[in-house]
Amino acid sequence: MSAFKQESHKLLVIPGPIEVTDEVLYANAYPPVAHTSAEFIPVLGDSIRLTREVLYTKDAQIFLIAGSGTLGWDQTSANLVESGDNVLVLNSGYFGDSFTECLRAYGAKVDEIRADFGNAITQAQLEKALAAKKYKLVAFTHVDTSTAVLSDAKMIGETTRRVSPQTLVVLDGVCSVASEEIRMDAWGIDVVLSASQKGLGAPPGLCIVAASRKAITVFEKRVSPVAGYYASWKKWIPVMNAYEAGKPMYFATPPVNLVRAYRQSLFEITSGNVSLQERFALHRETKARITAAVKELGLREVPQDKSISANGMSAIYLPDGVGVADLVPRMAARGVIVTGGLHKDTKDKYFRIGHMGTTAVNKQRGDIDKVIAVLTEVVNEVRKQNA
Amino acid sequence: MSAFKQESHKLLVIPGPIEVTDEVLYANAYPPVAHTSAEFIPVLGDSIRLTREVLYTKDAQIFLIAGSGTLGWDQTSANLVESGDNVLVLNSGYFGDSFTECLRAYGAKVDEIRADFGNAITQAQLEKALAAKKYKLVAFTHVDTSTAVLSDAKMIGETTRRVSPQTLVVLDGVCSVASEEIRMDAWGIDVVLSASQKGLGAPPGLCIVAASRKAITVFEKRVSPVAGYYASWKKWIPVMNAYEAGKPMYFATPPVNLVRAYRQSLFEITSGNVSLQERFALHRETKARITAAVKELGLREVPQDKSISANGMSAIYLPDGVGVADLVPRMAARGVIVTGGLHKDTKDKYFRIGHMGTTAVNKQRGDIDKVIAVLTEVVNEVRKQNA
Repeated sequence: MSAFKQESHKLLVIPGPIEVTDEVLYANAYPPVAHTSAEFIPVLGDSIRLTREVLYTKDAQIFLIAGSGTLGWDQTSANLVESGDNVLVLNSGYFGDSFTECLRAYGAKVDEIRADFGNAITQAQLEKALAAKKYKLVAFTHVDTSTAVLSDAKMIGETTRRVSPQTLVVLDGVCSVASEEIRMDAWGIDVVLSASQKGLGAPPGLCIVAASRKAITVFEKRVSPVAGYYASWKKWIPVMNAYEAGKPMYFATPPVNLVRAYRQSLFEITSGNVSLQERFALHRETKARITAAVKELGLREVPQDKSISANGMSAIYLPDGVGVADLVPRMAARGVIVTGGLHKDTKDKYFRIGHMGTTAVNKQRGDIDKVIAVLTEVVNEVRKQNA
Repeated sequence: MSAFKQESHKLLVIPGPIEVTDEVLYANAYPPVAHTSAEFIPVLGDSIRLTREVLYTKDAQIFLIAGSGTLGWDQTSANLVESGDNVLVLNSGYFGDSFTECLRAYGAKVDEIRADFGNAITQAQLEKALAAKKYKLVAFTHVDTSTAVLSDAKMIGETTRRVSPQTLVVLDGVCSVASEEIRMDAWGIDVVLSASQKGLGAPPGLCIVAASRKAITVFEKRVSPVAGYYASWKKWIPVMNAYEAGKPMYFATPPVNLVRAYRQSLFEITSGNVSLQERFALHRETKARITAAVKELGLREVPQDKSISANGMSAIYLPDGVGVADLVPRMAARGVIVTGGLHKDTKDKYFRIGHMGTTAVNKQRGDIDKVIAVLTEVVNEVRKQNA
């Protein structure tokens, strides 16, 4: 590999897309290869195997398909839901609303437990709902990118398995895979859906879905036909199995460059200079640094307490009298890209910082030092002007 | 821009993915940017405007969404078809079969006119079908990648407009956009669907759809809800319009790197060293060279005559007694990647060569010289061994 260095640029610390390594970008610029070639087959095959490793699953069916994370909602809905099925959504923000909308578009009867802004669903709420009605699946956003609220995936998986063992547990991990621990098999998570551009450390455009054997069995037993074509697991299961077995098979052309970039990032995540466990620890450590800096500035985070606060991103209330337009452009002018809120009720009251992937893991980059320094500088500057 | 040179590699002349320029690959390796940033908005905005230019349309609604070309079938089916609608598919190969399957998955009642292998549908067949039944839409594969059969898009558009003016005309242009002329407005084409990795000259992973005002009106008047979520134009129209107007809007994260690569390729296509018209002429010229070489070798092409033969790719019957496994690996060993057939009945009887994009347009690369030289060498070698 030649020594490729990416263009100098402002530090991208929004909650996805994120900073990616030179090696990942270089893989994205590898000359396109034939999707059925001996050269590409192991690229996709490795990516399937390493995705399982990141999710601590022995045998989940992995789907790597060109699309955004949203396509993961469609895959879940089109393949696992039949018209009239009861679904429970644990809604902790904007992305809960949207997942509900997607499920309904495919005919699901959705009940929602809605957390107040900045809160997560509790075990008691979940138990009560599962005891009251039989649900085919329960879905939740692991980290809601709009609020930085972290749901307790282990609690949700284990509680569902105990109270309603047939219900499938669906985890939207777009903003959590590889930045928050997810033990799919041990915790009883049946579907994890994600995307390439956040904790997984690649450019956007690849949708990543893992489905447990239990989920695949439910899929295989469906009575009505799959409600879609591009998202149909009937089409993709043989393709994914073929590539994993070292053989080509065609349904739709995979995004060969992006899969190569994704594999490169998975190599770094699973056998880089830190272990997967250390990676999660480094995300927690980074979060603690951000939280301390925020507190030091007299600011407040959106999640109501530390136990429900994401480790890969932060949502922070703006100082009194300061708008998003006062803060975000000033930080950008100093080379740090953060972003505003994303939640209909409160989006103008807070801003968001992403601290996932290489930014959290490779301390020698100094990304977090820079974020904290610039945030502190800008908040003090705005306060001085407003004083 | 630094002087990026892609890794040396074998010449990729399958009918997509294709060879792409260094500048396109370099754009794909640009550091990820925020999808809602002032930096990215014109990247998507330009891509929308330039896509219209390539399709000779004044005002079609453009959709640029992460996905393979197959997602274009889903977009067409989910947005324009309501359960029970009559659809006519002009089937000229493998991709006609699949488009039919997709339309049916969304509830369409599909009638097919099936051409024999290597043939296209005739005007008389189309007229007869349109006169016999009222169809909501007629769909055809402009170039069927499985057979290299080129359908007459102008004839199909004009005939449909004359015989059945309300019927929408849907052109699957995955293997034709930017290598075959398509005059969307003038010919009465209502939907063009395509993908980034063929004539459009970028890596795979971006689905490109253009829908006429007439198609959008039919969409807006639908009675049943859109049959999907990720593919829903209800979601994407405001997003695409916002980016074109220079404003951000969020539905799903766009593949920012790939859109930048796509825009770079569109710059080259629309304002590079040759005009769009010259580009089409160069594809025709390339095809003539391939045809002459094939004839010289005593081989035969799959399309039954020149008028229905694609200009961006060729499907060629193998010499007697020669298998795909004799020819394709030998060409690969000499640095030229071609591929086997893709059509259930006859896939072992022919092979395919792609000659789109920079391979056809930038003669100084010498790609076509190399393809012809290696093909000739290998065919002669195999014949000698078999003699």
